[in-house]
Amino acid sequence: MAKELTSREENYSQWYNDLVIKADLAENSAVRGSMVIKPYGFAIWEKMQSVLDGMFKDTGHQNAYFPLFIPKSFFSKEADHVEGFAKECAVVTHYRLKNSEDGGVVVDEDAKLEEELIVRPTSETIIWDTYRNWIQSYRDLPLLINQWANVVRWEMRTRLFLRTAEFLWQEGHTAHETKEEAIKETELILDVYGDFAEKWMGMPVLKGVKSAKERFAGAVETYCIEALMQDGKALQAGTSHFLGQNFAKAFDVKYVSKENKLEHVWATSWGVSTRLMGALVMAHSDDNGLVLPPKLAPIQVVIVPIYRKQEQLDAVTEKVDPIINALKAKGISVKFDDRDTYKPGFKFAEWELKGVPVRLAIGPRDLENGTVEVARRDTLEKEVLQMEDIEEKIAHLLEQIQENIFQKALNFRDENTFRVDSWEEFEAKIEQGGFVWAHWDGTDETEQIIKEKTKATIRLIPIDGKQEVGKCIYSGNVSEQRVVFAKAY
Amino acid sequence: MAKELTSREENYSQWYNDLVIKADLAENSAVRGSMVIKPYGFAIWEKMQSVLDGMFKDTGHQNAYFPLFIPKSFFSKEADHVEGFAKECAVVTHYRLKNSEDGGVVVDEDAKLEEELIVRPTSETIIWDTYRNWIQSYRDLPLLINQWANVVRWEMRTRLFLRTAEFLWQEGHTAHETKEEAIKETELILDVYGDFAEKWMGMPVLKGVKSAKERFAGAVETYCIEALMQDGKALQAGTSHFLGQNFAKAFDVKYVSKENKLEHVWATSWGVSTRLMGALVMAHSDDNGLVLPPKLAPIQVVIVPIYRKQEQLDAVTEKVDPIINALKAKGISVKFDDRDTYKPGFKFAEWELKGVPVRLAIGPRDLENGTVEVARRDTLEKEVLQMEDIEEKIAHLLEQIQENIFQKALNFRDENTFRVDSWEEFEAKIEQGGFVWAHWDGTDETEQIIKEKTKATIRLIPIDGKQEVGKCIYSGNVSEQRVVFAKAY
Repeated sequence: MAKELTSREENYSQWYNDLVIKADLAENSAVRGSMVIKPYGFAIWEKMQSVLDGMFKDTGHQNAYFPLFIPKSFFSKEADHVEGFAKECAVVTHYRLKNSEDGGVVVDEDAKLEEELIVRPTSETIIWDTYRNWIQSYRDLPLLINQWANVVRWEMRTRLFLRTAEFLWQEGHTAHETKEEAIKETELILDVYGDFAEKWMGMPVLKGVKSAKERFAGAVETYCIEALMQDGKALQAGTSHFLGQNFAKAFDVKYVSKENKLEHVWATSWGVSTRLMGALVMAHSDDNGLVLPPKLAPIQVVIVPIYRKQEQLDAVTEKVDPIINALKAKGISVKFDDRDTYKPGFKFAEWELKGVPVRLAIGPRDLENGTVEVARRDTLEKEVLQMEDIEEKIAHLLEQIQENIFQKALNFRDENTFRVDSWEEFEAKIEQGGFVWAHWDGTDETEQIIKEKTKATIRLIPIDGKQEVGKCIYSGNVSEQRVVFAKAY
Repeated sequence: MAKELTSREENYSQWYNDLVIKADLAENSAVRGSMVIKPYGFAIWEKMQSVLDGMFKDTGHQNAYFPLFIPKSFFSKEADHVEGFAKECAVVTHYRLKNSEDGGVVVDEDAKLEEELIVRPTSETIIWDTYRNWIQSYRDLPLLINQWANVVRWEMRTRLFLRTAEFLWQEGHTAHETKEEAIKETELILDVYGDFAEKWMGMPVLKGVKSAKERFAGAVETYCIEALMQDGKALQAGTSHFLGQNFAKAFDVKYVSKENKLEHVWATSWGVSTRLMGALVMAHSDDNGLVLPPKLAPIQVVIVPIYRKQEQLDAVTEKVDPIINALKAKGISVKFDDRDTYKPGFKFAEWELKGVPVRLAIGPRDLENGTVEVARRDTLEKEVLQMEDIEEKIAHLLEQIQENIFQKALNFRDENTFRVDSWEEFEAKIEQGGFVWAHWDGTDETEQIIKEKTKATIRLIPIDGKQEVGKCIYSGNVSEQRVVFAKAY
């Protein structure tokens, strides 16, 4: 099974596609650009959702739900938003089908909408149109709302999880009394995203702000987290936007302040999507399949019985039952794979492909010796442990794996992070792959030329970095600090 | 605040709309027929989702996600489905906007889809098209999948939660080796729905099957749960369909059986939606506002401090803190409403309107006497309790309220359930409102005439009822059992 996977070295892109499909995470659907998220993939996404949702609630946010459709005219209301936001949207023009003569259905031309509806590519416009009625006074603020939803952006080139026409995400939309409070919210969420990426996904991220060119259409400042994939390309894993008063002005959302003045509200918006699934796959997995961080693995421990005869299976099952119960009592998810339709070798390969962090194998000889074979997915190491030690050691082992996965990804990023000061070196490192810290003169023009020449974009302007002055890698003009370049997904 | 609510007697329909809006559950959006579910309403829906999701998982189901869009041609594949299913659907015809000369956006006519896409009104077609690749052998069965999703049905007359163009729901789609197994699944889910309605929503339901006329388009048998609202109208709260091999045949889904034969798969589908929110509101609430069953209330206990001076608030807060912690430790959700911008009377009315099951009020005199005033939302009764008894009594009181709400709804249903044997009596009772058990000759024609004459439909043919033979209420022809008629939402 695992053998069929293309290796990363042979073709990284093919390896990724093979893996997503063979590990039963997702597949392409009959609808161009839309994917089906399969149960195993969805179980990982559900874990992500559950953790993020808890983090949002712990920081005072509530969930709500806004319409899928947005009247076309709403997109024209915020000038930067309409100008900068991609126009590749699904447009609903009719609201009825009718039977056709050949027994099929056709669109009923009599049922044409007066104003077309756009399937939401993001919800700022419809939400700010709604907030106008929700916000009158400072007592209504802050308004801290999130929604879990599907959105559609009509992408021409799609890749499972990384870029699909329809995807799932959460989008937070908050309203505040002051600029400072809104910026604090934007940064708070950036920290939530950073913590989630590092502590749960085991994926180290850089934090910073986007250049003007890469900013969200309608934002004053876009904060982001960026991770490095194993092929040396960057992946934007989450964005948090400070929107200033742009949407409040476009949708006329004002509040009466404590000082009894009428003021426009300050706004943020922020989101992460099923793209994180792609990041998770690419950050850790290997040529044998997925490597899942224990904290997000739907199955943390799989137990494979080794047997020929039914009596042997019965004996193993008897020994394994209390182990399963003890592990479950510790909150560890365990699967006992006693399917009699597959052989142990097949099962080993399947669970390796699916990234289950720990595999236990128990056979007749183990029963005699009171032992269990324990295999780690991250290092592929095996050891034989005494059965009575299992409970205690597994919880600890899962923590070790979580930590090791993060450390490995961090080491990889360190090895592929470069500080360069000449154009030649810049071109070489960009070509090689990795995060390239270089000076930039701060102009759109230079940024554009660099992109055209090397395909590298400014991933972010670091926010906690030292403000080291230097000369722009391309123009030689003065630069106030290094920024991070990379080729990106 | 509560005063502004129209009373049920004055105008039941207006009372419902007022209540949904004033209790902050939902509101109409700028998009005709689509609602915004507000945070308080969404918190109730999230509780419902979480309980149902657990029940589905406990019975072996997994979640997945299928595309929002369905190619138009898919709807033509299953003959009954296309014939019977409403054609009011949102149709996507274009995939791009472009800037217009006036600074707005227009649909780009060059970006017309070759085949129109339908925003899913339900997902049988796209899912069975997908299952064709997932199912080869009996080893792939049963396939027990659910998805939480938004769907769109272009309704002309909409009402918040009860009938909206876009709504949220779950749809289960399962595949089985045998007819018996599929029917067992359909019945299992009907029981899950029934338990959820009765034990969590506190809403008694009848269980049965639909007449052929009322069946889901493409189903062999539609099972349902039906509840009685306070105005005497019935509300279909959930359906579970046995689909036979209809979709398997339409989408060519076959499996190799243990006997090595190629067979079509047997199917079910089942769903409940945000309509349950409407049912919850209408089943229990009164002229003062919502009455929520404790098990689904986002806030189970609200504590309102009574004070004039800051020192008094401080003293109350000091006393209340350990009570809050003790209640939270028991898993009870508590809100301490110490907003200084509102007076106690306003707060009392607000939490009454929002249906919080238990309200505690504590003022300076209570501190002196070591007492707390406890008010129950369901009966509006108040009593003064000793502070040291609070912890113990609240958990018990919440259980009592849950039970009382169910019992009250059950009594109401009993009082409004009639067995009638003459047409005159039938017309009178239907006009009065309630569940009317009457004999029916089993023909579509009689069913249609009764509907035209009285607006009553057959809500269900009971499945556990006694098979009492009699004469049809309308035609006088022989009837094998009584069926349940009512006017319905």
